[in-house]
Amino acid sequence: MGLIVQKFGGSSVADAQRIHHAAKRAIAARQAGNHVVVVVSAMGDATDQLVDLANQVCAYGQSNPTPPPKRELDQLLATGEQVTIALMAMAIHAQGHQSVSFTGGQIGLVTDDAFTKARIQSINIDRIFEELHAGKIVVVAGFQGVTADGDLTTLGRGGSNATLVALGAVLKADVCENYTDVDGIFTADPRLVKTARKIDRISYDEMLELSGLGASVLQTRAVEFAKKYNVPLHVRNSQNETEGTWIVAETPNMEHIVVSGAALKKDLIRVTIKNVPDRPGAAAMIFSDIAAANIVVDDIIQTVSDDNIADVSFTVEHGDLHDIKPVVERLLKELGGTPQARYRDDLAKVSVVGVGMRLHTGVARRMFQALADAKINIQNITTSEIKISCIIDKTDGARALAIVHDAFELGKAT
Amino acid sequence: MGLIVQKFGGSSVADAQRIHHAAKRAIAARQAGNHVVVVVSAMGDATDQLVDLANQVCAYGQSNPTPPPKRELDQLLATGEQVTIALMAMAIHAQGHQSVSFTGGQIGLVTDDAFTKARIQSINIDRIFEELHAGKIVVVAGFQGVTADGDLTTLGRGGSNATLVALGAVLKADVCENYTDVDGIFTADPRLVKTARKIDRISYDEMLELSGLGASVLQTRAVEFAKKYNVPLHVRNSQNETEGTWIVAETPNMEHIVVSGAALKKDLIRVTIKNVPDRPGAAAMIFSDIAAANIVVDDIIQTVSDDNIADVSFTVEHGDLHDIKPVVERLLKELGGTPQARYRDDLAKVSVVGVGMRLHTGVARRMFQALADAKINIQNITTSEIKISCIIDKTDGARALAIVHDAFELGKAT
Repeated sequence: MGLIVQKFGGSSVADAQRIHHAAKRAIAARQAGNHVVVVVSAMGDATDQLVDLANQVCAYGQSNPTPPPKRELDQLLATGEQVTIALMAMAIHAQGHQSVSFTGGQIGLVTDDAFTKARIQSINIDRIFEELHAGKIVVVAGFQGVTADGDLTTLGRGGSNATLVALGAVLKADVCENYTDVDGIFTADPRLVKTARKIDRISYDEMLELSGLGASVLQTRAVEFAKKYNVPLHVRNSQNETEGTWIVAETPNMEHIVVSGAALKKDLIRVTIKNVPDRPGAAAMIFSDIAAANIVVDDIIQTVSDDNIADVSFTVEHGDLHDIKPVVERLLKELGGTPQARYRDDLAKVSVVGVGMRLHTGVARRMFQALADAKINIQNITTSEIKISCIIDKTDGARALAIVHDAFELGKAT
Repeated sequence: MGLIVQKFGGSSVADAQRIHHAAKRAIAARQAGNHVVVVVSAMGDATDQLVDLANQVCAYGQSNPTPPPKRELDQLLATGEQVTIALMAMAIHAQGHQSVSFTGGQIGLVTDDAFTKARIQSINIDRIFEELHAGKIVVVAGFQGVTADGDLTTLGRGGSNATLVALGAVLKADVCENYTDVDGIFTADPRLVKTARKIDRISYDEMLELSGLGASVLQTRAVEFAKKYNVPLHVRNSQNETEGTWIVAETPNMEHIVVSGAALKKDLIRVTIKNVPDRPGAAAMIFSDIAAANIVVDDIIQTVSDDNIADVSFTVEHGDLHDIKPVVERLLKELGGTPQARYRDDLAKVSVVGVGMRLHTGVARRMFQALADAKINIQNITTSEIKISCIIDKTDGARALAIVHDAFELGKAT
């Protein structure tokens, strides 16, 4: 008897009809002879509505409102998934099958106390197995947990996927099915590249790079967890029966494919600090100040010129120049010497990813040539073992993605 | 330093403005030097909306829908109060005071497992006192608890008041303040009797009778609990600073007031079973069958005629003849002999309540005379030590209430 953990996101449980549709998928898996655990998100935009309500209460009558206390925000947001689990269990019951719902706390999903972005520490599987063995479909609230003190926590962006993969790991599931409103992971964003093709199988590492590059179906954290515990992930469409994309451990034959996918990150900001004294600790000073300001840095490029003076560039995603500028201006004073800052907020990043790069040569050349042929100027280049990224003008973004996608013939069946 | 438990019902926390208003009351009590615990209900009609959602999911695509499983319904309904506690704690915080919110489960409010109408078994006061001593206003979700197994439960109708009084008892509160949208308990329903006057102090027993007679501010269960643990209850208006009604242990001077209040129950159904064999067990058979059908009986009147044949009458509140008739028809066969049933669904009950009746004579006579003078026919009479009730035609109901209220001069200041 297999064990399947299924996850349905907010749009797949947005109303009674969709909840029943998701319930049918769970029941079908049960009837196929599997134990089934279902993880659900809050209905539709329920979480956004709760955040609005919190902001409204915190702003009421205040000239200078402060954000909601995070513990109380989590206490509030956790209700979103709790509503869905109860309704999902009711829908399964209405369709004639046994079901029981659990909040994060009820299955002992213990996290640290980093409210609004807590990390899972442990899950008590006893109650889940007890109910599975009693023949029930177990429905679990995604995105939430409980501290050792019993305070409710939420797991941050993509938290329901973290719950999915964590449950898959502790229950030793045969597969974690992530139901979304797309058919799987594509070789590029199909809204930008018409010839984009669904990927059948992809390795954890490739998926990690693609997630980090803005392919938004799966968050990096969930993929990391799946890789760590070797849980196969199956991303598929809740509206059809098509096989989706399997995210699995790398196999030797995966390296035959040079490039698995391409991705575009829009709206990058690049900050360049010129004339940084090239002494130990300068880079550490820069990036610790930026981290302290809670700004997430994407790529870092450092060049050293002859006279022990470095230029340090970094990119920031979806950033706001207003947030970054004061930090950088303060840094300029701390660094000593005569450093100067330059800002660009009109950049994008196009990347290709594939484990086959390790074996195949000429991948970078092919990418640069394709961009050059299209008269697209490359501002910066960064690479990893299985990824090549080019920073380009934002206005070239969508075109560059299509060109790179074509250059590696990603639209053709493998 | 005193300890006050305040409760705000759904209409007092229906939006951001009202939540802030309630928060102000809690802060004022804190600033007056008290420890403050606040119990809240779900916002406005949030509970009704959740019930609707559950019914919608259970009915979807079903020709013959079954009601939601009660465990899952409680899992769903408990979110209503959880939303309010978080927002209330945020509002208190926004007004510059420390606060922390707790669900029923988080303060170990353990109940039995009678889902949708659970009974409180115990409350763990450690965490509450810890937070109170840290200077925080503690906000607790009314209406909910948790079983020993960690399943969420709700406490049924008036459940938030049960939470209020239970907390008052275990915390040994100086007072439980029940904030509503009326000024307190009135000598009669002010919508029906223009001269109705707010009662300043009333005994638990009088309040119990009035609650049982349909004065809807406080449920019988909450008053019983307050009496058992001798917790003073203060029913007051959240929209003004007026003293409301204190519900307290009886004091000798209360008996100077013959009648404290009058009440009307509308929409009574009376069932009369004539020719019941007057043998042991006949009444037990009748009322166990009715209880098994989940029908709540109000008053019971039995008369025995000369030939060992009894007539048994009982009234049912807000009942539905369709529910009662099949039970009664089945009973007629079980009872043997030639019993017959008569139904009246056009009756009402007017009552007066007062601990002073124990000492004063002529109370019944005065009530009956007043009704007779107004040409109102009395169908049945039932009494307790501190209550006299008359069953009358429904069309006479409101007029009878006003007449009785006048006859005992309840509108005059005491």
